[in-house]
Order: sequence, then structure tokens, then C-alpha cells
Amino acid sequence: MIRAVRATDRAEWELLYQGYQAFYGFPDRSEAFYDKAFTRLMRDDPRDFRGIVAEQHGKLLGLVHFVFHPNLWRDEGVCYLQDLFTSPESRGKGIGRALIEAVYAEADEAGVPAVYWLTAEDNYAGRMLYDRVAVKSPFIRYNRKS
Amino acid sequence: MIRAVRATDRAEWELLYQGYQAFYGFPDRSEAFYDKAFTRLMRDDPRDFRGIVAEQHGKLLGLVHFVFHPNLWRDEGVCYLQDLFTSPESRGKGIGRALIEAVYAEADEAGVPAVYWLTAEDNYAGRMLYDRVAVKSPFIRYNRKS
Amino acid sequence: MIRAVRATDRAEWELLYQGYQAFYGFPDRSEAFYDKAFTRLMRDDPRDFRGIVAEQHGKLLGLVHFVFHPNLWRDEGVCYLQDLFTSPESRGKGIGRALIEAVYAEADEAGVPAVYWLTAEDNYAGRMLYDRVAVKSPFIRYNRKS
Amino acid sequence: MIRAVRATDRAEWELLYQGYQAFYGFPDRSEAFYDKAFTRLMRDDPRDFRGIVAEQHGKLLGLVHFVFHPNLWRDEGVCYLQDLFTSPESRGKGIGRALIEAVYAEADEAGVPAVYWLTAEDNYAGRMLYDRVAVKSPFIRYNRKS
Repeated sequence: MIRAVRATDRAEWELLYQGYQAFYGFPDRSEAFYDKAFTRLMRDDPRDFRGIVAEQHGKLLGLVHFVFHPNLWRDEGVCYLQDLFTSPESRGKGIGRALIEAVYAEADEAGVPAVYWLTAEDNYAGRMLYDRVAVKSPFIRYNRKS
Repeated sequence: MIRAVRATDRAEWELLYQGYQAFYGFPDRSEAFYDKAFTRLMRDDPRDFRGIVAEQHGKLLGLVHFVFHPNLWRDEGVCYLQDLFTSPESRGKGIGRALIEAVYAEADEAGVPAVYWLTAEDNYAGRMLYDRVAVKSPFIRYNRKS
Repeated sequence: MIRAVRATDRAEWELLYQGYQAFYGFPDRSEAFYDKAFTRLMRDDPRDFRGIVAEQHGKLLGLVHFVFHPNLWRDEGVCYLQDLFTSPESRGKGIGRALIEAVYAEADEAGVPAVYWLTAEDNYAGRMLYDRVAVKSPFIRYNRKS
Repeated sequence: MIRAVRATDRAEWELLYQGYQAFYGFPDRSEAFYDKAFTRLMRDDPRDFRGIVAEQHGKLLGLVHFVFHPNLWRDEGVCYLQDLFTSPESRGKGIGRALIEAVYAEADEAGVPAVYWLTAEDNYAGRMLYDRVAVKSPFIRYNRKS
């Protein structure tokens, strides 16, 4: 089942999000990090992030977080899918795809059909999926030096 | 002079923004496109885009547009620099760099120091500058198929 | 068993090489194409390509082709691994890695330790392996317009 | 004038080749490195590198080195353009392009029309030229760990 994340998912959601954070090199995020993120997901703020999870037999197998934000080229704005993760044991079953498609559906519902995300160039497993459900753009990201 | 865009810049601002849109393959944007974008820049909405221009001898030489938006990894959010352009005649004078640094200053002022932007992989002239004032990340952009 | 390709491999070798050619968009190579390539592999020319195959229970599961060629930066030259393929059914068993390592051994034996290859940026499955046995360089290939 | 490199170019050729080596991070190549490379260029070996230079008013402004090597997909082989350099003072005058086109002409003369080269992804100035005279392929280079 693909559904909105809810308060009772807190513990399992953190395990998944820890897996995601570790994938991107942050295995040691503080408890405060997870608390803040989950609190934001639970708030019903249309301008902040929302979360969708994949549940099977009462267990969470995947999550996706997204937000709508302004874009000067499009009046209705765009939908930014920031985080996507499925547990290693449940890969290859279409869960990642289902989560992305759930975001597409939410975006359509919101009248903001343009969905995008960023991924590491060498996230090969992710890109195998992304090439099927989306289109790689020629755009790369630059960050201010920190 | 690097300063906020203002209502009297409307005509010159459009010429610059047309140059930018043409660079990315959209030479034929409608007048409505420019009207809407400028109207948004003129509104004083802290959640929407703001514009900064470079003016010299009463003439606009460059523009930059940026917005703050939520990021689930950072409570304060991030600053997205969407558009940057300097007129072809005024390249190589540090205007692009000054505009980026003006955004950095605004971002610091707003307590949102993380500034990022996306650029085409083959925007060589731009990247020569970006490599000096920022860091290329390994992130690439995927778009939902339209 | 990892061993040099030999005349009796002709039929099975072609099936594998067809799989490789199809992967790169050339499913319809002529019989002459395969004949010429195999003839070159059979010649004992130290300046031309050599082939190594992976055999298990009398069946070929993978192939690799390589050649030594001059490089102006290195007196001894370099070793170019042009083609690498394992049959889809036999992926994930370390055959690709064994074939690459067999080329490394041949290159060492020849006193030409620098081995390199090119791969499509989106050859994700291949790159998962290559990142383990080699290093991605920042070099990209340009071709004369044909 | 675009012409083959000759023995009397030795000193000026080294200055240019030093510039090129420094660009790729090797400012301290030994004298032996340059001696060996020049000796090879002077030998009349059709299987080894040849050099072409751009001369103006008795001064060398640019160089290119290339070699023909086997390719299993093409009986006639391919032409690898390994090094291309023009002195910083003489950029923007079409010298790089003329050197590449001289290699194209040599390759055609040799019956080996397929010319290719590798360049660093962030060699922006080079790529501005390469995008005009050649086509970027999706191929990236992997090197054996050294």
C-alpha cells in the first residue's frame, strides 16, 4: 500500500530515512535531525514537505519526501522530490517506481505537474529506474562553497 | 551598481531576460511570460522570487533571480538561484560574479546560507565562473516526462 | 576457466559478441563483420587484438578483446580494452571482473601495465563493476563528425 | 603555416608541450620525457606518433600529436589525437581548429577517417572548439588503478 506517512510510522520511518542518509554519506545524523524532519512532515503545511510511504504486511518498505516551490518560469511552481528510498531487502519490486508515481499523482492533484529531482551521477541503481520514469536533463548542480 | 530590480527597469530587464531565455532555447516567450515574471519580482513576497540587477551608467548589464525554498535536510531552507545573465557586451568584467555574490549576501542576511543553482553541463562560459565562486556537485537533474 | 579464445570458439564467440554489439546499438552487424574480427583475433599479431573468454562446463559465458597501442606519454604504450561482455544469464558471478583481471595480467606480462577502456556514461551495470576494479577518469570522448 | 614538426623545432616544441603537460597537471616532466617524445615524433614510423605544428612568423604557436591504432570494429583502424595545444597568447585565432583539421586531412590520406580524442570534462575552452569540429560521445574513460 502506498499512503501518506503518519505519526505511528515514526520509528520505522526513521530506519528508512537513516538508510537514505547513510547512502549519501551521512550515517551519523542526530536524533534531532530526524525529529525535526518528521515533525515537519506531520504538520499540515502546504508549503512544506510531505511524505509518502510504501507499506506491506504492516511494515514500511520505502519512503519519498516532496515539496512544492516557486519557479519563475512557471506560475504554478514545481514539485521537488528530495528523498527517495526503499529498504535494500525490498528492491526490484517496483516500490521506488510506485513512490515516484504517487508523487506524480499528488503533483497533478495540486496542479503542479512539473516534478523533478536530483541524484548523484553514480547512483546507478537509482538511475536504472529514473531512466524509465523520467528524463535525464543536461543540468548539473553547483553549490556555494561552505 | 548592484541593486534590487525596480519597476522602472521593466523594459531593460525584459531585454536581458530575453537573452537568457534564448540561451536556454526559448527565444519566443510571450509578453505574458515576461509580465508575470516581472510582476512576481515586484511583489514583496518573501516566499517568491526576488531580482537583483547590475547597472552601469544608467544601463542594465545583468540580472539574477533567486528564491528561498524549504529543504528537509535544513530547517532554514535553501536559496535557489534560478536565472543569471549578463549582456554579451559586458562579459568578462566580473558582473556575473558580483551578481552571484549579491545573492550570497542576501542569503546570509536571510539566515539561509546554502545557495545553489543548476546549469547546463555544456554551459562552458558559465562554468568557468561557477568553478571559481562555487563547487560542482555530483548531482544531476531528472525531470518527469512531459 | 579464463583462457585465450581459440578457433573452435567461433560460433559461441559470435553469439556473445552479437550480444555486445546489440547492447551498443548494432544488432545487425554483417557476418563479414564477425568474420573479420574473429580472423584478427586468431592471427598471432602482437600489434593487433587478442581475445580472452570465460568458459564453464564447455560453454562460453563471456569475452574480452584488447590491444596494445602507442601512447606518447609512455614509452611502453597502453593497453586498450575495447570490448567486454558476459551473457545475461551469467551476470553477477564475477565473470566480468575475472575477464578484466585477465587483461590486467596479460598487460603486466607484456610490460604495459596501463589498461584503460571507454564505456557509455549510462552503462550502469558495467560501471558498478568498473568502479570496483578501476577508476573513473574525468575524460570524455569526442569523435570527428561522420 | 600548418606543417609537420621537424628537428629544428625541438626547443620551441618543448615549450609548447610543457604548456600542455602543465595544463593536465604535470608541470615537472623530466627532460628525458621530452627527449623521448620528440625522438619518437622524428622517427618515420607509421605505427607511432606524428606531430603537426602551427608556425607564424617563424614562431611555433601550436602543436598536435596523433597516432593510428587498431580497432576491432573497423579494419582500417582509428586515429587517436592525443595532444593538442596552442600557446595562450595565440588563442582565439583558429589555430586549434586548423591543427585538428590537419589531422583530419592526414587521417583521410591514410584511409583512416575515424578520428577521436579524449578531453577533461571541465576543459571548457577546449570543448567550445570541439563542439564545433566534432561530436561529444557518451563515452567516458576508466583507468586501471595504479
